[in-house]
Amino acid sequence: MEQISCAKVFDGEHRQYQHQSSELHCQMRFAVYLPPAALEAEKNGDTVPVLYWLSGLTCTDENFMQKAGAFRVAAELGIAIVAPDTSPRGEGVPDDENGAYDFGLGAGFYLNATQAPWSTHYHMYDYIVDELPELIEENLPISSVKSISGHSMGGHGALTIGLKNQSAYCSISAFSPICNPMNCPWGQKAFGLYLGNNQADWQAYDASVLLAKEKANLPILVDQGDADNFLVEQLKPQALVEAAQQSGSDIILRMQPGYDHSYYFIQSFIEDHLRFHAESLV
Amino acid sequence: MEQISCAKVFDGEHRQYQHQSSELHCQMRFAVYLPPAALEAEKNGDTVPVLYWLSGLTCTDENFMQKAGAFRVAAELGIAIVAPDTSPRGEGVPDDENGAYDFGLGAGFYLNATQAPWSTHYHMYDYIVDELPELIEENLPISSVKSISGHSMGGHGALTIGLKNQSAYCSISAFSPICNPMNCPWGQKAFGLYLGNNQADWQAYDASVLLAKEKANLPILVDQGDADNFLVEQLKPQALVEAAQQSGSDIILRMQPGYDHSYYFIQSFIEDHLRFHAESLV
Repeated sequence: MEQISCAKVFDGEHRQYQHQSSELHCQMRFAVYLPPAALEAEKNGDTVPVLYWLSGLTCTDENFMQKAGAFRVAAELGIAIVAPDTSPRGEGVPDDENGAYDFGLGAGFYLNATQAPWSTHYHMYDYIVDELPELIEENLPISSVKSISGHSMGGHGALTIGLKNQSAYCSISAFSPICNPMNCPWGQKAFGLYLGNNQADWQAYDASVLLAKEKANLPILVDQGDADNFLVEQLKPQALVEAAQQSGSDIILRMQPGYDHSYYFIQSFIEDHLRFHAESLV
Repeated sequence: MEQISCAKVFDGEHRQYQHQSSELHCQMRFAVYLPPAALEAEKNGDTVPVLYWLSGLTCTDENFMQKAGAFRVAAELGIAIVAPDTSPRGEGVPDDENGAYDFGLGAGFYLNATQAPWSTHYHMYDYIVDELPELIEENLPISSVKSISGHSMGGHGALTIGLKNQSAYCSISAFSPICNPMNCPWGQKAFGLYLGNNQADWQAYDASVLLAKEKANLPILVDQGDADNFLVEQLKPQALVEAAQQSGSDIILRMQPGYDHSYYFIQSFIEDHLRFHAESLV
């Protein structure tokens, strides 16, 4: 992997790297925030724990890093943050034929596509679960002690990946996640095209279905603005709460009055999420 | 003026407005952060003090608001923030003939142009000093108790506008300001085209010339990263320090080791600037 940028921020470093992904068959870029403790660890061959952040539709590795205001608290807590891209990229990677924002490039939905032409490149699930952490742990002062969070489509990614790999993550959080993609337009479009028409195959990527089936044994925090334009049609946090009740799982859902779907919402509560994860990242 | 967006953030509101500017002869957009205290004041016909933020080359009202991470502390301190655009805008407004980033649209340099074709629209000095505060104070729960800050070209703007209007502002700060535009390529290009070739006319917009001539009677804080690519050729903070010595003015210049010219630098120290201004905004 090749470092392509570095900027000092809150005594740590924001870096971008690119690498050839074997899962996605294309060149990928990701960003990492190394808190001061990680720069110290880098000198000593030591490591710090990490939060993986999955962004929403249309985002790249940049949105969270530029807009979330997360580094002050990450620096204080000594937690690294890794922000991958939201889909495979590059000229050879197929996109929605109309360039829609909610499918194809920028909209990988953190799953392994099974349908042509998507199945060659769109393996974001394996990329996030296996390839990226291996790369990170091999090349950076970052340990395998990790938590996962995300926003909107990335909140769906954080919940599904965290729930399906409970021994690999210490805690899960999400802002405005797509909680029940099988029952909303964004999810139905993406799952239909990436996974085919058999809805039984969709269940493996639906947080509410997963959580209803199996009790979660790790802490889960969800923040949702009640002035979010996508709340009723696309996000459906109530489905997640009902699923948790069904399996006897504990999740914290906080409805935040007046907040919308933007990074201004994330900025307002990211400190809470970082401190929530810090309690488990030991 | 017409409100075009509103998002809740740290219990306050980020709003964008557009209005027809009589100084600039075009429609302008600006952004404002109203802390919780301002929303309370709005109900009671009361007001809060304000920091005007001037952005750098290529920016709009959005860059600082999205990337600086300023709202947590502004909310705590009860200070509003106003972020105007960096130049006149719109179809009728002339731009650099080659679309250069450092002149024309996005590069108004906070001065009143005297040369055709720029002199019709490029009156950012009068817009920032007079028109915008009048509009703000008439329509929002924001008082005339104000300070001014900015970045790069906007740091030049904050310093020159603050120094030329010392009774109007409580304090000045800047990140990576262009300190001596008469002696750097960005300034020479812009001043030559906006103001003509008589360098005597440039002096009114050069912070180092202004500060050398007259003792400053308000607090001034400057942060400058020593890994900033523009430091030696364009920014020249040493000229400002020498000017302050010449007039017996107090300024605080902090050289910040390892920091560059980006918003990651601003994000790291904006809290210090807000607390610095809060001491004077009474």
